[in-house]
Amino acid sequence: MSLLVVGSVALDSVKTPFGEAEEVLGGSAVYFSVAASFFSQVHLVGAVGVDFPKGHLSLLQERGVDLAGLEKAEGETFRWKGEYTHNLNEAITHETHLNVFEDFRPRIPTAYQHCRHLFLANIDPELQLSVLDQVKSTDLVACDTMNYWIEGKLEALKETLKRVDILIINDGEARELAQEPNIARAARAILAMGPKTLIVKQGEYGALSFDHEAVFSAPGYPLEDIRDPTGAGDTFAGGFMGYLAKAANLSPLILRQAIIYGSAMASFNVEAFSVDRLKTLTYPEIEERVKAFKLLSHFDIP
Amino acid sequence: MSLLVVGSVALDSVKTPFGEAEEVLGGSAVYFSVAASFFSQVHLVGAVGVDFPKGHLSLLQERGVDLAGLEKAEGETFRWKGEYTHNLNEAITHETHLNVFEDFRPRIPTAYQHCRHLFLANIDPELQLSVLDQVKSTDLVACDTMNYWIEGKLEALKETLKRVDILIINDGEARELAQEPNIARAARAILAMGPKTLIVKQGEYGALSFDHEAVFSAPGYPLEDIRDPTGAGDTFAGGFMGYLAKAANLSPLILRQAIIYGSAMASFNVEAFSVDRLKTLTYPEIEERVKAFKLLSHFDIP
Repeated sequence: MSLLVVGSVALDSVKTPFGEAEEVLGGSAVYFSVAASFFSQVHLVGAVGVDFPKGHLSLLQERGVDLAGLEKAEGETFRWKGEYTHNLNEAITHETHLNVFEDFRPRIPTAYQHCRHLFLANIDPELQLSVLDQVKSTDLVACDTMNYWIEGKLEALKETLKRVDILIINDGEARELAQEPNIARAARAILAMGPKTLIVKQGEYGALSFDHEAVFSAPGYPLEDIRDPTGAGDTFAGGFMGYLAKAANLSPLILRQAIIYGSAMASFNVEAFSVDRLKTLTYPEIEERVKAFKLLSHFDIP
Repeated sequence: MSLLVVGSVALDSVKTPFGEAEEVLGGSAVYFSVAASFFSQVHLVGAVGVDFPKGHLSLLQERGVDLAGLEKAEGETFRWKGEYTHNLNEAITHETHLNVFEDFRPRIPTAYQHCRHLFLANIDPELQLSVLDQVKSTDLVACDTMNYWIEGKLEALKETLKRVDILIINDGEARELAQEPNIARAARAILAMGPKTLIVKQGEYGALSFDHEAVFSAPGYPLEDIRDPTGAGDTFAGGFMGYLAKAANLSPLILRQAIIYGSAMASFNVEAFSVDRLKTLTYPEIEERVKAFKLLSHFDIP
């Protein structure tokens, strides 16, 4: 039932056609943890600087996220500044200041080393490997990555992929990692690198999941009010991994449900800036959205 | 049970990363008719030039498509020359020669004027209106259009939209027609223009269907071998309208099935150039593919 995430905690400044936000709570581990906390106990490993506003942790604390693994390091907190135009599928990065994240070396507290479920958020694959070296026994390891690591640290990334069960990346990253424009062929090539399951996030178009037996297509929920897509992928991963940790079962049926719960969490998150929508979210609302996903995509054949 | 289509018959020259084809059978009415013929009797209204190779009609004849409304006009057949790079969602047009299609004025033979199902393929909306003036009683009218008409003949297009039941267009066209980047809002704006149902084709990502009651998301089938996407949209429309004509029923359940049958037909068509894949296609293969769509997208919620 317990879930460990290693990733970034950040201060984001984001502009979209629907508004802007300055120095708000962000980072992959934050989005992941808040989303996963609706389903499971979450332990977060990451780092913030001395300038990190104390109040920013209250949401995580209220949601019961264990922050014993959150280091406070000398220096400033990781900052990202970006923008989305009307193409909400693609972020334009204006500034990235790694700050304390530059020297971040994840140390997994002894108490977490036996977590059954582990998510390696989008960090340097060498750090992902060091986390894998520290954990003792896991039922399920999933990871994320990005074009920056595919282009700059491919060998380390390939080592990571040999040791994870599930890779969760977006459409363009999958095509780039496999060097193959056809997504079905790209998926086959990536599964040959190690993961038993590949989940391809397609932004507003939903997600595809590939394993050696089958393919699953989860719909995108056509929302009328999308204010900020930042963190959608990590919120998806949080809902997905949280649901799997709760279910403690990896059947194809449960895996598909987890993808739908992840999609539902992401669909809420994009309705507001930062993690604002998740602050007020309730479990009945999640269940209602999951039902809406079912109605959205259900059909019977003759 | 009978279905009328008005659209183009063309000679296409197409290049994709997987091969090329010169002066092969194409045109919206052709792709539509062949696909629809698996489900219903089809009557085709269109025009070819004196240079049109007679053998090109044999497939349509074999499939029982009624060609009494296909005019042979003085001049050359409509020709399109285009290319797809690895982004198979977008055609790059090199040449368009309307030829006989420039003076094409659809004349609906008396025998067809009582067809219950009508599809207005992507032609000048003024011609679409002239067809609507000629038909006497229809149960269901669907139409297609494109950016060229949205930009150049918006008023005529809006007149057409007031008189059709279903509009079938692609993602970018829907956003352009509504002048709204959010697809759910764009759909609402388009439904206010007249159609009771809007179907948004999303290429490899599948299709969305909007009406005043609900939204349906049909998955894209992740094929490993896509050779030529030309005609995918018209093949979709053919399968969709053919299925509806056969069912003679417009319940939400049937509408969703029709979208899946249309998607299945399109997924076959892109496996080869021109209508080559449809030449050898059998009904049991279609049923098998429809089952694969169900397996691809099915999930149960707890």
